[in-house]
Amino acid sequence: MSYVFDFGATESDKHLLGGKGAGLAEMTKLGLPVPPGFTISTEACRVMLSEGELPEQMWKEVDEAVARLEEKTGRTFGAGPVPLLLSVRSGAVFSMPGMMDTVLNLGCNEEVVRALEEWSGDAHFAWDVYRRFLQMYGDVVLGVPDRHFQAVLSELRGKRGVDSDADLTADDLRDAAGRFKALIREHADRPIPSDPREQLRGAIEAVFHSWNNRRAIDYRRIHGIPDDLGTACNVQMMVFGDLGDDSGTGVCFTRDPATGAPEPFGDYLPRAQGEDVVAGIRNTFSLDQLAELHPGPHAELLDIMRRLEQHYRDMLDIEFTIEKGVLYILQTRVGKRTAQSAVRLAVKMVEEGLIDRNEAIMRVDPDSIEQLHRPQIDTSADVAPVTTGVAASPGAAVGRVAFDADRAVEMAADGNGPVILVRPETTPDDIHGMAAAAGILTAQGGKTSHAAVVARGMGKPAVTGASGLVIDNSAKRALCGEHDIREGDMITIDGTNGTVYVGEVPLVEPEETPELAELLSWADEVRTIGIRANADTPEDARKARALGAEGIGLARTEHMFMGERLEIVQTIILTQDPEIRQDALDRLERQQVEDFEGILEAMDGLPVVVRLLDPPLHEFLPNRMELEHEILRRVWAGRSVADLQRMWSEVARWEEDNPMLGLRGVRLGLMFPELYRLQAGAAAQALVRRIRAGGDPHLEIMIPLVSTAPELERMREMVEEEIAAVAAEAGLELHVPIGTMIELPRAALTAGEIAKAADFFSFGTNDLTQMTYGLSRDDAEGVFLGDYLEQQILAFNPFQTLDTAGVGRLIRIGTEEGKAANPDLVVGVCGEHGGDPASIAFCMEVGLDYVSASPPRVEGARLAAAQAALSRGEAERRDV
Amino acid sequence: MSYVFDFGATESDKHLLGGKGAGLAEMTKLGLPVPPGFTISTEACRVMLSEGELPEQMWKEVDEAVARLEEKTGRTFGAGPVPLLLSVRSGAVFSMPGMMDTVLNLGCNEEVVRALEEWSGDAHFAWDVYRRFLQMYGDVVLGVPDRHFQAVLSELRGKRGVDSDADLTADDLRDAAGRFKALIREHADRPIPSDPREQLRGAIEAVFHSWNNRRAIDYRRIHGIPDDLGTACNVQMMVFGDLGDDSGTGVCFTRDPATGAPEPFGDYLPRAQGEDVVAGIRNTFSLDQLAELHPGPHAELLDIMRRLEQHYRDMLDIEFTIEKGVLYILQTRVGKRTAQSAVRLAVKMVEEGLIDRNEAIMRVDPDSIEQLHRPQIDTSADVAPVTTGVAASPGAAVGRVAFDADRAVEMAADGNGPVILVRPETTPDDIHGMAAAAGILTAQGGKTSHAAVVARGMGKPAVTGASGLVIDNSAKRALCGEHDIREGDMITIDGTNGTVYVGEVPLVEPEETPELAELLSWADEVRTIGIRANADTPEDARKARALGAEGIGLARTEHMFMGERLEIVQTIILTQDPEIRQDALDRLERQQVEDFEGILEAMDGLPVVVRLLDPPLHEFLPNRMELEHEILRRVWAGRSVADLQRMWSEVARWEEDNPMLGLRGVRLGLMFPELYRLQAGAAAQALVRRIRAGGDPHLEIMIPLVSTAPELERMREMVEEEIAAVAAEAGLELHVPIGTMIELPRAALTAGEIAKAADFFSFGTNDLTQMTYGLSRDDAEGVFLGDYLEQQILAFNPFQTLDTAGVGRLIRIGTEEGKAANPDLVVGVCGEHGGDPASIAFCMEVGLDYVSASPPRVEGARLAAAQAALSRGEAERRDV
Repeated sequence: MSYVFDFGATESDKHLLGGKGAGLAEMTKLGLPVPPGFTISTEACRVMLSEGELPEQMWKEVDEAVARLEEKTGRTFGAGPVPLLLSVRSGAVFSMPGMMDTVLNLGCNEEVVRALEEWSGDAHFAWDVYRRFLQMYGDVVLGVPDRHFQAVLSELRGKRGVDSDADLTADDLRDAAGRFKALIREHADRPIPSDPREQLRGAIEAVFHSWNNRRAIDYRRIHGIPDDLGTACNVQMMVFGDLGDDSGTGVCFTRDPATGAPEPFGDYLPRAQGEDVVAGIRNTFSLDQLAELHPGPHAELLDIMRRLEQHYRDMLDIEFTIEKGVLYILQTRVGKRTAQSAVRLAVKMVEEGLIDRNEAIMRVDPDSIEQLHRPQIDTSADVAPVTTGVAASPGAAVGRVAFDADRAVEMAADGNGPVILVRPETTPDDIHGMAAAAGILTAQGGKTSHAAVVARGMGKPAVTGASGLVIDNSAKRALCGEHDIREGDMITIDGTNGTVYVGEVPLVEPEETPELAELLSWADEVRTIGIRANADTPEDARKARALGAEGIGLARTEHMFMGERLEIVQTIILTQDPEIRQDALDRLERQQVEDFEGILEAMDGLPVVVRLLDPPLHEFLPNRMELEHEILRRVWAGRSVADLQRMWSEVARWEEDNPMLGLRGVRLGLMFPELYRLQAGAAAQALVRRIRAGGDPHLEIMIPLVSTAPELERMREMVEEEIAAVAAEAGLELHVPIGTMIELPRAALTAGEIAKAADFFSFGTNDLTQMTYGLSRDDAEGVFLGDYLEQQILAFNPFQTLDTAGVGRLIRIGTEEGKAANPDLVVGVCGEHGGDPASIAFCMEVGLDYVSASPPRVEGARLAAAQAALSRGEAERRDV
Repeated sequence: MSYVFDFGATESDKHLLGGKGAGLAEMTKLGLPVPPGFTISTEACRVMLSEGELPEQMWKEVDEAVARLEEKTGRTFGAGPVPLLLSVRSGAVFSMPGMMDTVLNLGCNEEVVRALEEWSGDAHFAWDVYRRFLQMYGDVVLGVPDRHFQAVLSELRGKRGVDSDADLTADDLRDAAGRFKALIREHADRPIPSDPREQLRGAIEAVFHSWNNRRAIDYRRIHGIPDDLGTACNVQMMVFGDLGDDSGTGVCFTRDPATGAPEPFGDYLPRAQGEDVVAGIRNTFSLDQLAELHPGPHAELLDIMRRLEQHYRDMLDIEFTIEKGVLYILQTRVGKRTAQSAVRLAVKMVEEGLIDRNEAIMRVDPDSIEQLHRPQIDTSADVAPVTTGVAASPGAAVGRVAFDADRAVEMAADGNGPVILVRPETTPDDIHGMAAAAGILTAQGGKTSHAAVVARGMGKPAVTGASGLVIDNSAKRALCGEHDIREGDMITIDGTNGTVYVGEVPLVEPEETPELAELLSWADEVRTIGIRANADTPEDARKARALGAEGIGLARTEHMFMGERLEIVQTIILTQDPEIRQDALDRLERQQVEDFEGILEAMDGLPVVVRLLDPPLHEFLPNRMELEHEILRRVWAGRSVADLQRMWSEVARWEEDNPMLGLRGVRLGLMFPELYRLQAGAAAQALVRRIRAGGDPHLEIMIPLVSTAPELERMREMVEEEIAAVAAEAGLELHVPIGTMIELPRAALTAGEIAKAADFFSFGTNDLTQMTYGLSRDDAEGVFLGDYLEQQILAFNPFQTLDTAGVGRLIRIGTEEGKAANPDLVVGVCGEHGGDPASIAFCMEVGLDYVSASPPRVEGARLAAAQAALSRGEAERRDV
């Protein structure tokens, strides 16, 4: 078995040659002007990882490959007349940009410099190449910090009175080379070898060892790349973009990576090596300017771009160099792109016949779709964030700071422009404020905190857990570094990347992307799982429908008990007068009928799953601590507290140490049947109104937090009684499927029993994850979930992506046994995971009928479902 | 198929004939003097339950059976010269004493009364029989409330100036009969039939219908008897204990049901029918007195008792009647007995060769064993409880009331006698007070509340959730009905039945039951699952060992951080000075070494599983609300609060909305490694000390609340480092198995992964039940668990008895997959369920290696395990 492969001499196998090596091999085979070279395979790296050193045979093969290279190029490694210089670059299977090491201009020593000078007739070039080599090798292979070299260059530039290294003289550069060698002697434990073969050995070892440097390991952790893949190492003849005015180097994209426009796009820098382009020291030329400078190479480059696009059937990112008027291609890979560009490119390439629709579907990241509809920070604005938090909900927003929900509502209504709600963290009490605000900023919480989940559901930008943000609610003031932020001050937040700015930063409104609708229509054709939305209001329902939702998988009803209705609810809980109580119940019922009617109308013809009241009763009561403080205040002031005593005792009565595990959901429904009956009756009345209005309403009622079959059986009976009463009064037949959330492990484990009393199941994966892990999302996010993820105790955040081994196993058990017991059972998912692409793929595999996502994630879910269907089809075809 | 079977004419099949019918049939076949009769089978009742009425064929068979009875007895039903009177009694498969209906003296009318008078020569007897019949038939069959009849009798007794109905004259009774008939005409919707056959039909229907009366349904719910079994109905010739001085009736036990002493025991009442004995109107005679009165029947009765005991091989409860010097046996069944009696009888009967050891093991209720070691209320004392709560921990206690834990400790030490700790509910803060108290009384909580669990663990009597008990802690005062209880007042509690008394009620100290040790030694021979104890102190460990524990399955360490050490722990959490912190850690470590040393010594030679710290950190900090009150108090008094601010912010920092789902167990260990390292190091040092002292310590370390394999892997590494460090310093090899609690659903679902890093699993079924149901034990018990059980939404309390369908399924998955991944894995259970007999049987079935129970339940667990093994063996034999 060989470790070393000349470019183009073998299959372009990415796993063996790495991404860069495979690209070079493929381009060589296509006959493109690639400087010759060879790839040392990832297998050599894996030997090093398992045995501690690179295989001996590899070095022999490297020597042979260098000899072939000398022959092929007519140049000599380490000597004149035309010296062969090499670039030595890493190249892993999955791109890890900038994480590993590179050595350029290798094969230099004093003798070679002289030969270079003679060959090029350019002393400046020759010594610049040498100092570049010394600097890079000293840093990368010998571990001398680059700042020492930079200090020397800086001193020389100062002496010479110039800004750029390019303006130093040949003498300056000779001087720099000498001082670099001295620096290396001083700081490294061995001198720089003058033998080019020894240089090459050091560089190859450094490249392979860099697989295990800290930042590469971290990068792999973050991106889920296995540690045992290893990297390849590419050794290639140097071509010089700094060899006079007819030389230069550049980077180009075959189409516009920002907008997806079908024109090539690139930067070119004359008299430069590649690193100078990246360093951004001088202004670059556009491709049009290149056409004027070098029409021949430019035309050739455009032609190559076309050929590569045809070959790879994708938008590509290409590195090229022009050496004395001759074009060389140094690297190509699939180009990174914005969400908008991804969508446009995919659709356009189908039109062009480059790819088919399925391929187009696979080309777009479903998570990115959401960004298409949100404003973004204008990247041309030169502003620095004052802090960074979690990118909780994408998009940017500018507005005046409000420190509580009520003020947010008032300020949003005052006609003075949008508001940003700033809170330590949010709770269900803040919903009206969040609805009124243009964006949400919190000091605590992560990507699945209340603020994040609700903001995503509302489609509003949010930054959570902003570090260093200290909020003093009572003083209506927040401190952030040296900034003292008061109510009404302008701030800007960017939920796409988690940044926070003081003042007004210009935003860019989203451009229309008409190609999206087409792409999604293709997705709808191939996907095999239904997509519904979680929506609690008529507005959200309409929005969701417009985004393609095929019904509502979860309409939460608790917010219908909040806001101005809270007083009615408190009356129901607190009064002892049956008449006052009944009056409050009646008022609430009338309002609920309208709530449901609006949602059913917005989703006419499609299913609407209404979940009955879920949260613990005490959430509708005042905070006990505040109440106690008020009582103490009055007591010490000698005032009466009688009126507060009763309130206090009710609050204390319903207080729970672990409300998540307490009196909520169906338990509340069984203990306070009037509330559930009210909701069921109101929903049935809304159904009647819609039928009479000539609509086609499809109401379904969902009972939350069931853990035993009898809970569902009794509640079903109660709900059916209410529906029957409404039906009898209206003289109509009402068909209302009744089902349950499966959100407790026991419900999944006994699904066979529970399914007998259910028309449908909906996995509430948020609670199911909490119970399965014994982990409160909100408590954990503030304290240790971050550490757990960082230390890889958790490989992923189970509140974002479904834990297939634990929670997923329960979903599988629940689905299989539920459907076995009741073949008509419809099964879906309505937790946060309903909008997560990886989780959607799992839901399909398990055989769920639909997923339900928050409205802004509906489009992404449609795409993700299509991708999962295509991947499954692919996998099945492979199995055949 | 027949519905009606003459006594003795068929197999004594309890399921067909009911318990009473089978007994009568069996005794008839044995040739005992049973008045003849027949049984209408449970099948007839089942027909009624499914079809709505009794089968027509049955009535035909009843007529035939009555004709055979007339022939057999030479008496005539409904006429002279010798009238046949019948008793019609229910008799279900499982005894439901007093729940269903009975009609006696049936077959009476004016004509029959005259014949009876003639036959007996006793008008008083004849009219008394008639009025008894009218009264009972009127009540049971026709629904006339008995109080109407009682009012008439009361009036007649008043007129006649006598206390007993037996002292009324024949005329009085004739008068009563007439007025009873008038009452029935007035109150019932039909008159009393004078046709005896119609009477019989009415009585049989009433008996069968009484299967579905309210109290019978409730009784079946409570005792888990299926509703569709149905009852049988026994029709038997009446014999008369009230037919003159040589007649009487009685009840006897073949041995003493209270003490188990091998002497017969009984009550006899001359000139009476059976109901008079039960009513307790007159003083009864002992069996010795009966011997003097009627030596012949007495001798015959003793002989019958011996024969029945030999036949049934158990202690029996017998009803008998002597009619004119002739003994009749009316019923027999296995006698109810006290725990002590059950143990003694079982062992004694083995000695006598009546039963074998396995039978003896099956005869004793494991749950009752605990009572043998506890004082009981003296049942001869005539006292009434002031309230009743949950029988949380058996035994009775008398003592002075203390309203907080600190006072309980002080008062217990003052030499003035025992203390009862009275609290709204208890928390871990109260442990020292509970330890000092003789008993615990709480106003809230059920059988698995903190107070109940800890009290059972300590072997102390406790009553929890005492209804109507209102405690004002700050005023050191409790109100209970009209009683105003202050600190130091005497009260008595009885945790065996949940009663609470004001004042000192005499107690009976437990008698030694030497037979128990023998019974348990037999149990140990047959059981196949290990029994360990949950014990946290050397005292508890010694106690557990004495009771037969084969090791410690769970030594909790959190209490070692409480009490006077709390200050050290708070210092560790709060200080910012590393030296002060280290000093506190060192002090705590030294004390922990002694804790562990004592336990290892007490369990020398047996495994001791030490669980590292489990509860949330904030449990070691002050209560935030109290702290806030103190801060407010000071602020308003214009005093400084700087010192409290820091404490407050720490408390707030660690506060959690759902601490059960928060930073606890291994999560704490990973976030604060010093605490877990301290504990592991201290345990290893204790191990070294015990080895050096020549002991044979078997330390195991258990990591709680693991939900992912990496948590256990990292913590294992950390603990092993600490042990290795101690071993190296001591120059010893230390072998310490390291395992984990499986108490989160995910741990069970991914047991195959986790088992690779574990030497043992211990199912923490308390938390596992909470997470599987999504139900906090403490929160639910105070609010709705009772309702859930009453309404049969839960068929049982899952915190007492393992929920096999949900939690048990997780245990099965965890055990099977854990053992498959790691064949050496030792698996046990250490929740409350470890002491519950039904749960132990399940643990055996699943293949666990041991269960671990609180020390007072260790003996019961040994017995329950033996019973489960025998039942399984039995089931396996049946399968072969």
